[in-house]
Amino acid sequence: MKKIINQPGAFVDEMLEGIVLAWPDRLRLSEKNARVLLRAQDAPEGKVGVVTGGGSGHLPVFLGYVGQGMLDGCAVGNVFASPSAGAMADMIRECDRGSGVLCLYGNYGGDILNFNMACEEVDFDDIQTRTVLVCDDVASAGPQAAGKRRGVAGMVYAFKIAGAAAEMGWNLDEVADAARRALDSTRSMGVALSPCILPEAGKPTFSIADDEIEVGMGIHGEPGIEVHKMMTADEVARTLLTKILEDMPLAPGSEVSVMVNGLGATPMEELLIVYRRLHKMLDEIGVRVHMPHIGEFATSMEMAGLSVTVIRLDEKLKALLDAPASTPFYTNTNK
Amino acid sequence: MKKIINQPGAFVDEMLEGIVLAWPDRLRLSEKNARVLLRAQDAPEGKVGVVTGGGSGHLPVFLGYVGQGMLDGCAVGNVFASPSAGAMADMIRECDRGSGVLCLYGNYGGDILNFNMACEEVDFDDIQTRTVLVCDDVASAGPQAAGKRRGVAGMVYAFKIAGAAAEMGWNLDEVADAARRALDSTRSMGVALSPCILPEAGKPTFSIADDEIEVGMGIHGEPGIEVHKMMTADEVARTLLTKILEDMPLAPGSEVSVMVNGLGATPMEELLIVYRRLHKMLDEIGVRVHMPHIGEFATSMEMAGLSVTVIRLDEKLKALLDAPASTPFYTNTNK
Repeated sequence: MKKIINQPGAFVDEMLEGIVLAWPDRLRLSEKNARVLLRAQDAPEGKVGVVTGGGSGHLPVFLGYVGQGMLDGCAVGNVFASPSAGAMADMIRECDRGSGVLCLYGNYGGDILNFNMACEEVDFDDIQTRTVLVCDDVASAGPQAAGKRRGVAGMVYAFKIAGAAAEMGWNLDEVADAARRALDSTRSMGVALSPCILPEAGKPTFSIADDEIEVGMGIHGEPGIEVHKMMTADEVARTLLTKILEDMPLAPGSEVSVMVNGLGATPMEELLIVYRRLHKMLDEIGVRVHMPHIGEFATSMEMAGLSVTVIRLDEKLKALLDAPASTPFYTNTNK
Repeated sequence: MKKIINQPGAFVDEMLEGIVLAWPDRLRLSEKNARVLLRAQDAPEGKVGVVTGGGSGHLPVFLGYVGQGMLDGCAVGNVFASPSAGAMADMIRECDRGSGVLCLYGNYGGDILNFNMACEEVDFDDIQTRTVLVCDDVASAGPQAAGKRRGVAGMVYAFKIAGAAAEMGWNLDEVADAARRALDSTRSMGVALSPCILPEAGKPTFSIADDEIEVGMGIHGEPGIEVHKMMTADEVARTLLTKILEDMPLAPGSEVSVMVNGLGATPMEELLIVYRRLHKMLDEIGVRVHMPHIGEFATSMEMAGLSVTVIRLDEKLKALLDAPASTPFYTNTNK
């Protein structure tokens, strides 16, 4: 197996140990639960908590966004598996500074089940919670069933925007509303060229032929819409952006941020070549791009491929996106 | 060919176009030479220029470090090929603010030849230059022939430190000296698990068996020291750090920064698992780690593998490493 790991069963815990050894001034594991990552310093009393959780194997998603201006905590599951309800409840308790906690996470069955249990549990401690699900992948369901869509890289924009709102002192309903408004304006879709290898299985999760590309595939290898013969970068850009714009038309004069997210093995050079075409297509319809995000934000370990996310900005969302943030994996100095 | 590109011959120019479309406030191409990337705003008069150059295919190296607190310019070659002497000379002229220019680049024959020609050329314009070569890869030559070593990820520390010195107003010899002192204290070594694909060739540059790992391989696929059966993360960490410490022993109480650099396809999770072991090994010999760098800093497109770099810090180097920097690919807010 071509992975640089030790015991496959130790993959997640050793990764977490590496993170807190690397950034002890910024991150710590909860003393109550070794699968809960927190900011090294608690947020000030009264700040709304913003937390997430999900399976491992997607760095920087999820836990890479714990830090100033983004998340307060993250419950960490095994590879591609939900964290336990217990870890989520421990996390919510640790992140409540008296003003409640927003649970902001991807629309996957296991995560929903466990977060719901956790929220019920902390309700007994009089901790207020709100839940906002990320459902940004337009490939995973049609517009009539948009609530069934999977959550993918668009969640990073939601973390950023909700995190900024909480940092600015907004109350729990306002922070949840900011996340919801961000996600109402966010759409994503991806392509995959190769599978990833689960540490415990030791072999690829699926296969794609040497001359093919799968359009609309999910970040756990969920089947896409169609399998194509290999496409050029411009074709990939056009295919993904066209599908996104069908779902969320943009009027001339609109402003957006665009994320070109590498799934793991795809070089930065290729992401930039795709961005070039996206930028030109948007320019042609009179849409301006503000603060593009190009790099690896939500991966699937060593999967080759990329996703495109578009978020339509209004003045409020733009101010929240522009606000400072600093985590080991995401820094915005607004310069 | 499994690459998300258009015409292979357009790979570099489209990538550059993507970069300047993405960050027009921060970067621009020289009007005189489309293979010269510059800061969008010229540095202030009197600041020493710090420039580099090299082949494409290593993002963020080289051009990803153009920006405030690091480089003033980068001459961009084709994939794994030196930029032209003409591009280098154009760049040096654009980056001279009256106080001379440091050329800081990897120890490769083509780059040396062309940079030497460029420096001779700008000498006619009375532009002072200094050259410092990066030779950090301990696998590529023994200690008696350290000047023959290849330049790999350690160059990022040199860019950071020389860039900070220039930003602080140091003169040309002082900036060159800071780069030299940084590199005297820097050692790197890597492992590769899989090859990369050159866009114009369309196929892998070499092969490694499914159960093997090559120790000491260069970032263009230069042969390593030995081919092993696949190793665990802990074995990789021990092998690389042992070799680095043989070459640069560290006394108890020393302070270092450590870079775990993904070569392209290796997941961030695995880099963190390797960092965990490095940190513990250093801790056992009484060496403290300051500001680790974990991620992709100097890649080889979609090559799987990683390199480890150690830089021994004194108070001066530490202050320069800690100084603020902001480029689209590297941000240090010193938080």
